[in-house]
Amino acid sequence: MYLSKSIEDLVNEFSKFPGVGKKTAFRFTLHFLNSSKDENARFSKALIELKENIKFCKVCHAPNDDEVCSICSNPVRSKNTICVIESYKDLVAIENTNQFFGQYHILGGVISPMDGIGPDKLNIQSLIDRANSKGTMELIMALNPTIEGDTTIYYLTNLLKDQDVKITTISRGISFGGELEYTDDLTLGRSIQARQPYELLINK
Amino acid sequence: MYLSKSIEDLVNEFSKFPGVGKKTAFRFTLHFLNSSKDENARFSKALIELKENIKFCKVCHAPNDDEVCSICSNPVRSKNTICVIESYKDLVAIENTNQFFGQYHILGGVISPMDGIGPDKLNIQSLIDRANSKGTMELIMALNPTIEGDTTIYYLTNLLKDQDVKITTISRGISFGGELEYTDDLTLGRSIQARQPYELLINK
Repeated sequence: MYLSKSIEDLVNEFSKFPGVGKKTAFRFTLHFLNSSKDENARFSKALIELKENIKFCKVCHAPNDDEVCSICSNPVRSKNTICVIESYKDLVAIENTNQFFGQYHILGGVISPMDGIGPDKLNIQSLIDRANSKGTMELIMALNPTIEGDTTIYYLTNLLKDQDVKITTISRGISFGGELEYTDDLTLGRSIQARQPYELLINK
Repeated sequence: MYLSKSIEDLVNEFSKFPGVGKKTAFRFTLHFLNSSKDENARFSKALIELKENIKFCKVCHAPNDDEVCSICSNPVRSKNTICVIESYKDLVAIENTNQFFGQYHILGGVISPMDGIGPDKLNIQSLIDRANSKGTMELIMALNPTIEGDTTIYYLTNLLKDQDVKITTISRGISFGGELEYTDDLTLGRSIQARQPYELLINK
């Protein structure tokens, strides 16, 4: 179909990218076929350097260039509040909101017996150590609102029930700009149960 | 924003891909961060081999693994009919239709003075040579229906006006499944001018 095995091989490799089908993979391959040697070299270099240079922060487990990441070592950011997240992309998403000035802790997933992921495969011990250390006052559970996420929050809350640490979760409810009519029953029902004081709305 | 320069560099490289924005580029980068060394090595190999192994067919200029591509060297395919196209991706698109059994000629673009592309930058001389060679009876102009494409067809037709070669273009009209109401005036008007005998429709 592609006349060339090299083209076919690269199309197959690009097809493994998340959300990329054969057509897009072919477009990416043509992009490389048409770009200069310099451009391709720059891409290969970036690819190799990613795996070579990346370290995982000793404190929060975020991928970065140092032993301790720039968030954990930033003296301006509060060490009292730790936002517990599943993965690095949630960190980037929350940072983009400019609404959080504490530190993070990346679990590396959530408890999911169906997928063979038990608590031992997650960065839980280091979280307990951080929760026990002086100064930590609040853990914000910012896990995805799934059964596995909720199970993980329950598990962590149980582990920490004797510690003097406040545990909160990010609020759930209808999205900004969402319509009640099209919101699922569970979300809508809970948003009524967990109604918030009006003052919260106007403070935003 | 990404905590790591290596991550940022790769995100920037992926952003150069056609149709890829920052969010998708970040997803691709995480895909590489999470995949195994073996997988990354396989990707790098496919990337390097593309540039190293690819040759351009001496006859039709298609990228492939040999001096002459598998279409041009296929004895079953008719050498009498040559389909003139802008680029390799048009070849793949036409091959996918399973409706053409002749050979191709890739121009490598179309005449576009605005972009500084004159006839000298295209594979035109080799097309003239092929048109002059014994056995060539028809050139099908399958260029994109743009002003530049039509200019190029006009230019080629003029060059070949003294040759005993029939020149045709792929038919233009409303797409299969298209609606007259939403078809642009130019296309609809021309489709009435260039109406086809009913027999053509039922033969399909």
